[in-house]
Amino acid sequence: MYRAPVDEIAHTLKHVAGLRAALDAGRLGDLSEDLVDAILGEAGRFATDEVTPLRKIGDEHGAVLKDAAVTTPPGWKDLYRRWTEGGWNALTGPEDFGGQGLPQMLSVAALEMWNSGSMAFAIGPTLTMGAVEALDKHGSDELKATYLEKLVSGEWMGTMNLTEPQAGSDLAALRSRAEPVGDGTYRIFGQKIFITYGEHDFTDNIVHLVLARLPDAPAGTRGISLFLVPKFFVNEDGSLGARNDAFCASIEHKLGIHASPTCTMIYGDGFAKDREPGAIGWLIGEENKGLACMFTMMNNARLAVAMQGVAIAEAARQQALAYAQDRRQGKAAGFDGEGMAPIVHHADVKRNLLTMKALTQVARSIAYSCAHALDMARTGEGDDARHWQERANLLTPVAKAFATDVGVDVASIGVQVHGGMGYIEETGAAALLRDARIAPIYEGTNGIQAIDLVTRKLPLSGGEHVKGYIGELRADIEALRKSNADGFGATAERCNAALDDLAEATDFLQRALADGRQEEALAGATPYLRLFALAAGGAYLVRGALAGEDKARVVLARFFAENLVDEASALKRRVIAGAESLVSADAALAS
Amino acid sequence: MYRAPVDEIAHTLKHVAGLRAALDAGRLGDLSEDLVDAILGEAGRFATDEVTPLRKIGDEHGAVLKDAAVTTPPGWKDLYRRWTEGGWNALTGPEDFGGQGLPQMLSVAALEMWNSGSMAFAIGPTLTMGAVEALDKHGSDELKATYLEKLVSGEWMGTMNLTEPQAGSDLAALRSRAEPVGDGTYRIFGQKIFITYGEHDFTDNIVHLVLARLPDAPAGTRGISLFLVPKFFVNEDGSLGARNDAFCASIEHKLGIHASPTCTMIYGDGFAKDREPGAIGWLIGEENKGLACMFTMMNNARLAVAMQGVAIAEAARQQALAYAQDRRQGKAAGFDGEGMAPIVHHADVKRNLLTMKALTQVARSIAYSCAHALDMARTGEGDDARHWQERANLLTPVAKAFATDVGVDVASIGVQVHGGMGYIEETGAAALLRDARIAPIYEGTNGIQAIDLVTRKLPLSGGEHVKGYIGELRADIEALRKSNADGFGATAERCNAALDDLAEATDFLQRALADGRQEEALAGATPYLRLFALAAGGAYLVRGALAGEDKARVVLARFFAENLVDEASALKRRVIAGAESLVSADAALAS
Repeated sequence: MYRAPVDEIAHTLKHVAGLRAALDAGRLGDLSEDLVDAILGEAGRFATDEVTPLRKIGDEHGAVLKDAAVTTPPGWKDLYRRWTEGGWNALTGPEDFGGQGLPQMLSVAALEMWNSGSMAFAIGPTLTMGAVEALDKHGSDELKATYLEKLVSGEWMGTMNLTEPQAGSDLAALRSRAEPVGDGTYRIFGQKIFITYGEHDFTDNIVHLVLARLPDAPAGTRGISLFLVPKFFVNEDGSLGARNDAFCASIEHKLGIHASPTCTMIYGDGFAKDREPGAIGWLIGEENKGLACMFTMMNNARLAVAMQGVAIAEAARQQALAYAQDRRQGKAAGFDGEGMAPIVHHADVKRNLLTMKALTQVARSIAYSCAHALDMARTGEGDDARHWQERANLLTPVAKAFATDVGVDVASIGVQVHGGMGYIEETGAAALLRDARIAPIYEGTNGIQAIDLVTRKLPLSGGEHVKGYIGELRADIEALRKSNADGFGATAERCNAALDDLAEATDFLQRALADGRQEEALAGATPYLRLFALAAGGAYLVRGALAGEDKARVVLARFFAENLVDEASALKRRVIAGAESLVSADAALAS
Repeated sequence: MYRAPVDEIAHTLKHVAGLRAALDAGRLGDLSEDLVDAILGEAGRFATDEVTPLRKIGDEHGAVLKDAAVTTPPGWKDLYRRWTEGGWNALTGPEDFGGQGLPQMLSVAALEMWNSGSMAFAIGPTLTMGAVEALDKHGSDELKATYLEKLVSGEWMGTMNLTEPQAGSDLAALRSRAEPVGDGTYRIFGQKIFITYGEHDFTDNIVHLVLARLPDAPAGTRGISLFLVPKFFVNEDGSLGARNDAFCASIEHKLGIHASPTCTMIYGDGFAKDREPGAIGWLIGEENKGLACMFTMMNNARLAVAMQGVAIAEAARQQALAYAQDRRQGKAAGFDGEGMAPIVHHADVKRNLLTMKALTQVARSIAYSCAHALDMARTGEGDDARHWQERANLLTPVAKAFATDVGVDVASIGVQVHGGMGYIEETGAAALLRDARIAPIYEGTNGIQAIDLVTRKLPLSGGEHVKGYIGELRADIEALRKSNADGFGATAERCNAALDDLAEATDFLQRALADGRQEEALAGATPYLRLFALAAGGAYLVRGALAGEDKARVVLARFFAENLVDEASALKRRVIAGAESLVSADAALAS
């Protein structure tokens, strides 16, 4: 089973993402490297020893709905209790409300480990953290005083209610409505779907954040407001009062993350016929500015989903490697022991395992670098803060889409490495693939991430920000050239070629946008995002390999450069010359 | 739901794979094009109207084991009865035993449609057909007289028993044993795993073909013999006699194809204590030549698995397209109707759907071409037969590995096109992905197919066969150049570049093998197989588009050429320059 790779995570944080430099520059307050190591070690221990053992039972039992109440799998409620008691829910929460206010870098590293332990478990607290962030930034003092401390500690959990049947990627189509009562509260009516942990037995209360429209609100996304709708009302002394009219009508039967209850929530269905109908809610932020409130946290949520991709990939990689070291079949050139060779010695299996490792590490590096940028933005000022916020904005869609694609691909390779055993549910390899498959879809599909990257992030700072970023990646390859380090083979040459491809494709898309060739830009978005991630990945692997003496990192960077990064050239051509054949292909989509 | 694409299948058979030319040349006996169309239409109707509606119930109920008996899902037994009554089981069976002896081209086309209907259903008869083939080619007259007619009609089903816990890809490790009784029969002892339809309620009897070792047989694969072990003995009048000691001990809980019972079979466990122990079996073919008997049918089995890949891809593509035409979100450049645009108009969704269609059609073309070669080999003589047998041998691993990878990839894209709905089991998109995931594993993993292609198929005819094949593909592109046909964009140029890459990689691997650089050849096998398929695919799409006036085929060929075939260049470099970084990367596989 999974063991948290604390050393690799710490190395990536410190030497690839920039944690050590940030510490050295005093950018992270009184946080020390020792404390970082201690927190990572403890988070890893919790993931390895406490979360991972409950992954399988969660998958097998799933969440069960009966009479509008959801029961989580055996042992899960107690796991959640130990989780909150350990203070893990409060890791990044605001210090004013009991949080530890630690950097995003530590948060994403811990999230990775917990998600490797069980994605179905870790996703619940992730949603709570999102609710904390939205409430902390946009909620009134009264709402904060009532809800924040308990959300930070994890005594209560939070949910995010965006999607409706007709409004998925397009929130403009949202129909849930909110009617002002006149006393500062609102009556909420509507149906929300795909609400993660919308109902469960972990906590006594659940705090729903719900998007809805006020009467006479403008059409589209500028007429959406955000409301806080508690499952139980909170009395002035903090105790729980009456039940609100917010109920789970059904839970989904999903491909994976079975233990995570995915709820259809009905607000204001009038369960208590003697009361006025409507679920009572409180406005968060300003009227009609709900989407802006959501967007402030959506980037972090996307980064959290990126961590799910990294997490599943890492768990799948470890499991496949262990199987390949144990399972013996046939003879192999690299094995001169007795009897059949462990299959890890077969070239094809080796290729699979190295591909898994390289892709996982690239995804991790991008995501951690994004978290680093968020921390720099938070602790910086003026142009510096702006610079780092742009960096975070640039890397967020790349981290989300690439890492979640990697999660699926690596989990699928993991099944393959197991051979027939991989198809048997008992092994657990297939369950990782089932879990992984949602991550490219939710929090904005990967197609939408690519569009976001191209249309909103490439233009940052007049197009200069992304160029500066590519320049930094080039500096890594230049450092490799200057180092004369052994064992890198053609790494520098291949990685530079990929960066050339990235620069050329970036220019092309920036010009296409400037010239109003929107459709061409949209058509190239998905291959561009992958090209971006691969080219960045080569530089990150080199950066990590140059820091320290570990031969494993050197050979991995070389494998990636000589086997995987080359895809960049085909992706570049797809971006630059593929659009017309796509746009003009309607005839092939008739049937 | 799925509708059999009979027109596209017929077009591919006739104009891409070579069915029409074979008919024109009188190579297929008295088969006429009208008869071909009639059979395809009826097979399609059966797949669409009879098989497809039972796919979901099969997935949900699965096969159930109780007291060593397996119950198939509701309605499935009756579906199988209608299937045999329609004569479908006998399509390619030997005419002497009631079969129709139709060409493989028709068989694979029909198999594709039935597997699109339900892979869990179609896999059962596929195994029976394999047993028929082995028995017909290698069985004694007595065994044939007793079993063949009923296996051909489908009154009984057959199974293939190869795998044991320690012997998967490496059959040399096989341990099941067979002791001669002295009366021409053998007592079989051993455990076999992953036995598809090893036990079920479709038929009164089940005919197991079992690999086992005779006493004092040579070690390794040269000491394996093949035995026929019926579930019930057959009396001289053809009626069923006593129960044999061949029992299903358990069935697997699998990721997909739930309705297909995957059995652990125990032979000779001594269930009847008053009898001598051992399951009674009859030798098929010669002693110690069991693997050769199996190999004669293994190629066809691999092609049958290739059809599962094509089938799932086609079913997933149709379902995703229907969803994308129906589901509306946001605005799109290509849509000027009212309200939100059907998502098929969004560039990213379009890319996904076109990718699904192109990959599916490429996989189909390769597989049908392989079937064509088998038919030519069967009906040819001397050098001609040899040539076509080599062609079939060359294309079989490509068809199996590429098509099954495509099945997984396309099914995964299908989930993505559905957005959140794709992750909900009710939709059925995820079930296709779950079903698809076994096909790259069984009948020889795709890694093993690649090794087979490189080490056994590239050397055919002193390395000339594959070169001749590449020359034929070049002729397709040359025909496109000469045609001056509209709408192909840069198709010729891109496809030719891919064929250059294929030729170069082929030369490299042939030289590596000749020079004894085995490990380098093995390291490049998997990327080479994909390169082979993509380069061939471009030519096949062009061939199909040049035959007829359908604009859809033209734009699809162009999309493939300008967006997908370029991957060939990266794959070529991976083959030629990727091996060293793989072979020397052990340090990265320690943990």
